Amino acid sequence: MSHPDANLHPVATGLAKKTVDKHSAEQTLKLFAGWFCPFVQRAWITLEEKGIPYQYIEINPYNKGPELLRANPRGLVPTLEVAPGKSLYESTVLCEYLEEHYPGHKPHVLPEVGKDDYTRAKARIWTDYVTSRVIPAFHRFLQFQPYKHEDGEKRLDELRREFKSHLLEFSKEIDPQGPFFFGPDLSLVDIVIVPWAVRLWVFEEFKGGLRIPEPGQGGPEEEAWGWWRRWLDAVSSRDSVKNTTSDHEHYVPIYKRYADDMAQSELAKATRAGRGVP
Amino acid sequence: MSHPDANLHPVATGLAKKTVDKHSAEQTLKLFAGWFCPFVQRAWITLEEKGIPYQYIEINPYNKGPELLRANPRGLVPTLEVAPGKSLYESTVLCEYLEEHYPGHKPHVLPEVGKDDYTRAKARIWTDYVTSRVIPAFHRFLQFQPYKHEDGEKRLDELRREFKSHLLEFSKEIDPQGPFFFGPDLSLVDIVIVPWAVRLWVFEEFKGGLRIPEPGQGGPEEEAWGWWRRWLDAVSSRDSVKNTTSDHEHYVPIYKRYADDMAQSELAKATRAGRGVP
Repeated sequence: MSHPDANLHPVATGLAKKTVDKHSAEQTLKLFAGWFCPFVQRAWITLEEKGIPYQYIEINPYNKGPELLRANPRGLVPTLEVAPGKSLYESTVLCEYLEEHYPGHKPHVLPEVGKDDYTRAKARIWTDYVTSRVIPAFHRFLQFQPYKHEDGEKRLDELRREFKSHLLEFSKEIDPQGPFFFGPDLSLVDIVIVPWAVRLWVFEEFKGGLRIPEPGQGGPEEEAWGWWRRWLDAVSSRDSVKNTTSDHEHYVPIYKRYADDMAQSELAKATRAGRGVP
Repeated sequence: MSHPDANLHPVATGLAKKTVDKHSAEQTLKLFAGWFCPFVQRAWITLEEKGIPYQYIEINPYNKGPELLRANPRGLVPTLEVAPGKSLYESTVLCEYLEEHYPGHKPHVLPEVGKDDYTRAKARIWTDYVTSRVIPAFHRFLQFQPYKHEDGEKRLDELRREFKSHLLEFSKEIDPQGPFFFGPDLSLVDIVIVPWAVRLWVFEEFKGGLRIPEPGQGGPEEEAWGWWRRWLDAVSSRDSVKNTTSDHEHYVPIYKRYADDMAQSELAKATRAGRGVP
């Protein structure tokens, strides 16, 4: 019996397909990926930013093949095989590994050890903030079913405000000169949040809107929301982000299953159980 | 009105008190700490292992003073002030910062960048495993109130088995030669889990026992439990662990509040809400 989520579009499309095609040849470094997965996109963006040679291997995470399970018996996507018999997983671990193991590949997404260790540490604090606060709140809002509760609209609005409060706290830490989190250069912090930032349309499509203040409407938070808007423009138009993004139409049915709280990914199930990123 | 958790013993005792006394003089590097807090202990062990000069400043996390709030407006413990106006938080971030910023201070708890990046990445995977799986399961088990549920004992036993399954999965990754996670040398992975490992008595005291198999009783998991027992012996007798541990009697009332699900720490509240490490 096939998994209910196994009917998703099977391969990357649009600009992401071009990127996949460029990276279909055999390489030692192999990224086991799902084209639509935001955690995959973190590692994929890092590879693209740095121009590291890699092989892209498409995996349907709901129908894992023997190739992935050989590389990683846990069957997790993304998995990065770094050498035969040596695989890594956890998207932030992959990003840090790529940064550290390919020092000749620019741009650096973290300062090198010994150059600015305070900023390295701050990058980890805010990377953790994205994973432990922003993403769970994104999914609580997205997966909430107002029609199942008497005060459903009120609770939906609370979840909207909770999610936006995390975006606002993040925004207050963005470098005032911008456009990126630490200033003119893209960093790990930008990379770990951007896959969700470019999926914010899901709230317009399915949840009555996110309602981030329009320019000039941010009241006492106008400055921070201004940093957010400039940041979002900058990351959305980054080549590495566009080149790892498929055609919009193919994300819609995937996120509709989340919005209907029918998705069966580990994150969807953890959110349903009231837990965080598994 | 004072916080219900504010009545805990105010200062370190036993061997930990001797360590505090040795580090009471002014230093640029300041650890804002709570003597009983396992997250603090991660950073504290790292400082002690490496012999980095630091000043220990005792904070009651339920009654934060202006000194902490000046260093870190978020008021989090542990906070590490690295220079005036520059503070870091998040215990794993502190450990990695200390490793990276004091390269002359041995032992290294991670391989240096470029020397064994695969092991660096594996250390981060298992550090994350401890924080995202082991600790939440520890607290779900500890804070569960069986008398509140008709099938309370059955559910308590499920939580016991869930927690032990995480310890077992961790144990299976311990180096077969041991005694530490990666072999003969202590590493970040050992440091991030040891504060909970030396608090396992709470389950004997309050929850009817943890029931890790005795030697020879582990059945098909005998080998992994053997690695666990050897690992636990090695970390428990490490000087840095003993010297950051207070007298047993003063932990008991603190953990009784957790066991009664009355504790008001952020982690206690997150566990009650069904969430993970906040």
